Amino acid sequence: MRKLDGFSAALDREHGIQIGRWSQYDGLPGLPFGAMWCVIPPASASAEDRHPEVELAVVMSGSADLTVAGRRDTGGPGTAFLFEPEEPHVIVNPSTDEPLMVLSIYWMPEEAA
Amino acid sequence: MRKLDGFSAALDREHGIQIGRWSQYDGLPGLPFGAMWCVIPPASASAEDRHPEVELAVVMSGSADLTVAGRRDTGGPGTAFLFEPEEPHVIVNPSTDEPLMVLSIYWMPEEAA
Repeated sequence: MRKLDGFSAALDREHGIQIGRWSQYDGLPGLPFGAMWCVIPPASASAEDRHPEVELAVVMSGSADLTVAGRRDTGGPGTAFLFEPEEPHVIVNPSTDEPLMVLSIYWMPEEAA
Repeated sequence: MRKLDGFSAALDREHGIQIGRWSQYDGLPGLPFGAMWCVIPPASASAEDRHPEVELAVVMSGSADLTVAGRRDTGGPGTAFLFEPEEPHVIVNPSTDEPLMVLSIYWMPEEAA
């Protein structure tokens, strides 16, 4: 067993938010996807992102307000959002005091074959 | 974008807990892993499980007390646990009033190559 804790991960500023790529972890078993912790501070937002990978954004803590390809939705812990390739997406943390943490999992569509 | 909500998913009793396999969702893009919501009611536990897949257990809501291959650890939202193939694991919800929700993602080791 290996415990991975997003709150104690090394984070870098990227896309206007704090990103902790799982490539920082040595000795993980092979994963069939890329993964990163995304921490969006209170009352802030990610830059718009868009990429060829499918992305699964799992809301772990706090509350998320997303706009994806012009469509808006919200969700808290217990929800996950799937973005299709090339869908532009922005994630907003509407809270004024609580950070939003999302686990982002992503893969190229052909890797799922 | 597609929103997946573990709290409104169809759940079946399996392994002594409530399981919502993502195979219930029509029209998802291909995923390079299997996925299921696991809801462990207050003051209860999963049966011991053990399988050839690698498993990533993402704690989404509540608090988890795990025993994996004889080692015990705890974690709340913002943590994830990786189980190696064939590691026996039990998940306990120590809370007397809050359900524990975990998103379980699993794959065969050779699929990560």
